[in-house]
Amino acid sequence: MKATVIKNGILLTPGQPAEKKDIRIEGTSITRIEPDLEPLDEDHVVDAAGRLVTPGFVNTHTHTGSTLLRGAGGGLPLQEWLKNVMWPAEGQFTSDTVRAASNLAMAEMIRSGTTMFMDMYHLDMLHLAERVTEVGMKAVLGRGMIALDGRWTERLKESETLIQAIEADTSGLVQAAVSPHALYTCPPDFIYKAAELADQYDVVRHTHMSETASEVSDHLAKHGITPCRHLYELGFLTPQTVLAHAVHVTEEDTILLQESGASISHNPRSNLKLGSGIAPISRMLEADIRIGIGTDSAASNNRLSVLSDMQTAAILHTGAEENSTAVQPADWLRAAWRTGASMLGFSNTGELKTGKAADIVLLRTDRLHMSPDLEQRAEDHLLYAAESSDVTDVWCNGRALMREGTLLTIDEEKVRAEAESEWRKIAESTS
Amino acid sequence: MKATVIKNGILLTPGQPAEKKDIRIEGTSITRIEPDLEPLDEDHVVDAAGRLVTPGFVNTHTHTGSTLLRGAGGGLPLQEWLKNVMWPAEGQFTSDTVRAASNLAMAEMIRSGTTMFMDMYHLDMLHLAERVTEVGMKAVLGRGMIALDGRWTERLKESETLIQAIEADTSGLVQAAVSPHALYTCPPDFIYKAAELADQYDVVRHTHMSETASEVSDHLAKHGITPCRHLYELGFLTPQTVLAHAVHVTEEDTILLQESGASISHNPRSNLKLGSGIAPISRMLEADIRIGIGTDSAASNNRLSVLSDMQTAAILHTGAEENSTAVQPADWLRAAWRTGASMLGFSNTGELKTGKAADIVLLRTDRLHMSPDLEQRAEDHLLYAAESSDVTDVWCNGRALMREGTLLTIDEEKVRAEAESEWRKIAESTS
Repeated sequence: MKATVIKNGILLTPGQPAEKKDIRIEGTSITRIEPDLEPLDEDHVVDAAGRLVTPGFVNTHTHTGSTLLRGAGGGLPLQEWLKNVMWPAEGQFTSDTVRAASNLAMAEMIRSGTTMFMDMYHLDMLHLAERVTEVGMKAVLGRGMIALDGRWTERLKESETLIQAIEADTSGLVQAAVSPHALYTCPPDFIYKAAELADQYDVVRHTHMSETASEVSDHLAKHGITPCRHLYELGFLTPQTVLAHAVHVTEEDTILLQESGASISHNPRSNLKLGSGIAPISRMLEADIRIGIGTDSAASNNRLSVLSDMQTAAILHTGAEENSTAVQPADWLRAAWRTGASMLGFSNTGELKTGKAADIVLLRTDRLHMSPDLEQRAEDHLLYAAESSDVTDVWCNGRALMREGTLLTIDEEKVRAEAESEWRKIAESTS
Repeated sequence: MKATVIKNGILLTPGQPAEKKDIRIEGTSITRIEPDLEPLDEDHVVDAAGRLVTPGFVNTHTHTGSTLLRGAGGGLPLQEWLKNVMWPAEGQFTSDTVRAASNLAMAEMIRSGTTMFMDMYHLDMLHLAERVTEVGMKAVLGRGMIALDGRWTERLKESETLIQAIEADTSGLVQAAVSPHALYTCPPDFIYKAAELADQYDVVRHTHMSETASEVSDHLAKHGITPCRHLYELGFLTPQTVLAHAVHVTEEDTILLQESGASISHNPRSNLKLGSGIAPISRMLEADIRIGIGTDSAASNNRLSVLSDMQTAAILHTGAEENSTAVQPADWLRAAWRTGASMLGFSNTGELKTGKAADIVLLRTDRLHMSPDLEQRAEDHLLYAAESSDVTDVWCNGRALMREGTLLTIDEEKVRAEAESEWRKIAESTS
């Protein structure tokens, strides 16, 4: 594999001035970062003049299998939307539906600069594990487990089969998670068993927690403790635990999260669109709880762009708290890059440093909305003005997934056509 | 002027299913909207297959003159940002600075589908009035008046001169406003005189109101009534009054707004970024108060894209109120199009109808983020997924301002270069 040298780009490090430096990629890693790197004759040289250079974005919570429901049933009340739109459609999903959906999701994620994602879904995850490595992204995959029907053994076995398949994969791109859906869809004893399974294989634990006020009040009414305390008491909260949402967490919950080392996937666009609320992120950051950025599914976002969710977060909390310094801009970049990656168990990426994995994104800046004074204001332009369509190039683990706006490992036209035709089948069978 | 026929596009009307229809533009107006319009031989035909067709977006509050401060001083507390970044820079602004800034602003607005804006600024507005008609946008321009120094007559005279210059303009593109900056920068008696001036010329009144909690509490401490009641008592609130922000309005304020017929420019991204808060939009909509969408200046947004602010609003209020139906999706489209235009005194636009002005935008939809099922979900895709860069074509008053992604009436490269060079001068003189 030829080495690649990215020349003349403007490198962004959270909280530091942007700087012009060149990057050398050899194999899967960044091997040098210096001003004016001299490429060797055989090197592949990429001119990134005027481009921002950032780590790949990390999506800490999504459900790629439901991407074909993007924008379906907008404006309906939540329960009506679930009962009349989401569930009837999902009930008809086949492997083909889910494969089309995941391909669409991965294509959109790459196009918006995302190189890594955490996926929880109940269908066809074994195939997704193979597909992720073909496409060349990094992912943590968990079989989403709902355990209301007593088929616990079957669910846990499916999770274990996925874990074992992923363990056998040698690409280094895919990791497994144990993913009970939520405390309101999984009895406490099942959560306990899920934790045991995660321990057995030393993998990430992932679940939804305290997404809505009614979820928390229902749980309090039934069990007398918050979902967070319940997960804590069940031993589910560890430094390898990623909790999606955490919109409605108490002060005491915050202390338990801090103590356990569990981390939070903040999904601001989904929480806002669905009317779930606004998570107390500044309080959790002050308690040194790790925060990553998730898109949740396209059905409730409607984007799968971590850049877009990060940008929403960057204005949301200053506004909701009426405090323009509630969260520092650099904290959002850390959340979307390094912290997110570490939460997912990938400690060797999320920053542009020698020795780290070459998960790298270029964004064009010859844009009206990033003018003027790019270099001095690079962080601000990225956080408050850039669009996903400004992303031009993406490398993951040293492999180019997008060059100059063209996806290299996914056939974009085919993906869109399959998304349409698979959706048609669902629409016809549910109408 | 040859007629233009836009063929095969998907027309979006708030709250209605999208429909494939063709549009005929003659002169400044839409003269026909029908399925399968047969163009005449001499007509200019635009194939909009697969494109969304919408009215031009209306920006009900901005300050184009400060666009070069986009992204400057991000992350600083508000007072520090104003004192150490904004004011020193603005103190150095010349006509050249402001012209470069306004050109950059207009270019970005057109590129994101905006055809009309309301501008409040204190420098070079006479020139802007000419420049707007050259560029071909529609605008309402007011000389932003701060009256703390007693030079009231001078300020009012400048406003009147601008009004008279605009009255002499026959393009129909520009209207005047009387724009006292705010109650905290203009004594009540001055506000009263400003209202008289607006009456004399029958023009729009525009001011900032109740942007921050401290503004309101300071006003209560000093005057014993809210800024809204104060403006009401001064006779400033009429159906021709546009109030920017209205973040901190009481229940009683809402009744006064309703009674007076004044309208609100909602600027969600600026209110969030600056930590001002979240305006009670659903309450105001329930009281039938007209709501438009404003970007505020690029310094506090950082975009000048009404599409982007509309999208932020569409998720913000459902989230903050924890109610997924707090505001209906179609209400945001009305705010960004027809209501905004009517607030600015342009009653003949903001909707795709025969006889209305040809202010029309096309957006490409062959995008991963708008897949699948475009026609059924067009409104949702536009509100929750589209990007400004999806806008391909813009007409204003029948004149093409952008075709297939290329600006026709502004030299984009030159605008960006001038923005850089003018900013350099300011940076050097303030460093």
